[in-house]
Amino acid sequence: MEKNIDPKALFKFSYGMYIVSSLDSQGRYNGQIANAAMQVTGDPCAVAVCLHKSNLTTEYIDQSKLFSVSILSSEAPMTFIGQFGFKCGRDIDKFCNVKYELGSTGVPMVLDYSLAVLEARVVGSFDIFTHRMFFGEIISSKVISDGEPLTYSDYHLIKKGKSPKNAPTFVFNQIK
Amino acid sequence: MEKNIDPKALFKFSYGMYIVSSLDSQGRYNGQIANAAMQVTGDPCAVAVCLHKSNLTTEYIDQSKLFSVSILSSEAPMTFIGQFGFKCGRDIDKFCNVKYELGSTGVPMVLDYSLAVLEARVVGSFDIFTHRMFFGEIISSKVISDGEPLTYSDYHLIKKGKSPKNAPTFVFNQIK
Repeated sequence: MEKNIDPKALFKFSYGMYIVSSLDSQGRYNGQIANAAMQVTGDPCAVAVCLHKSNLTTEYIDQSKLFSVSILSSEAPMTFIGQFGFKCGRDIDKFCNVKYELGSTGVPMVLDYSLAVLEARVVGSFDIFTHRMFFGEIISSKVISDGEPLTYSDYHLIKKGKSPKNAPTFVFNQIK
Repeated sequence: MEKNIDPKALFKFSYGMYIVSSLDSQGRYNGQIANAAMQVTGDPCAVAVCLHKSNLTTEYIDQSKLFSVSILSSEAPMTFIGQFGFKCGRDIDKFCNVKYELGSTGVPMVLDYSLAVLEARVVGSFDIFTHRMFFGEIISSKVISDGEPLTYSDYHLIKKGKSPKNAPTFVFNQIK
């Protein structure tokens, strides 16, 4: 069947902006910016995050079966987002000079510019084309600070942010 | 491991508001309000929606392997949302008196108060506790009207909306 996709239609989806973090089997930390994250059940409480299969954080989650989500504030500056969004943990230690703490599972949770953080234990995953969706049962969550969440829309419109090549929305953002 | 979940942390996630529609093997239509919907890949283009397992729309998607997403406008009134969100297609025909059209796959797409619509063919699903996440390859998408998307936050704060019992966020919204 022939496809007829207008990418502008997909720009109407609403997202927040998050840092998804994990650790590998040697206890090294990594994290990355993600917009595709959401609560999926309320009892028990679960969250889903969708990351590119080739990303380092994806490898780490596959190893530890743990991840955290930091829900970013609208006050997060581009320099901070850039550290987690456009650099690779294979080249730099993203947790250097960043305020974080370890959850009860041992997973790192970034606190800088975060309104709230949660840690989750992976209960399953699903590969969808280029990406992997991880489903995690939430083990703990807490509010870090007051403020408004950074939305993906604000990130593009106000902060003039771009999408790195492994974002779910990459292809279409380039022609925006 | 003991859990320590502060539901207020989970309120910081950002969502839009959507109508997810489908048809059953007899060609009957149904749709429901959902907030847990997002684009998950860009090439090919895929979308994921998370619905309660017991919902009628879930049954229909299981049968037809098709669904559509209508991205709602901030101008959608509570009466309209109520028809799709708090009533069950087992009791009423939700498509009665609603403007919709059929996509190239035959799936109905609600046009009223929609900024954009898309139709998708299911390529897989994943059951997470009470809910089922459907992954769909997008077959077509188009913009219907200008305007701002309705966000889940606006729905609660401005429209004083509540969550029906089968929403992913139900448990926590009750104590908000």
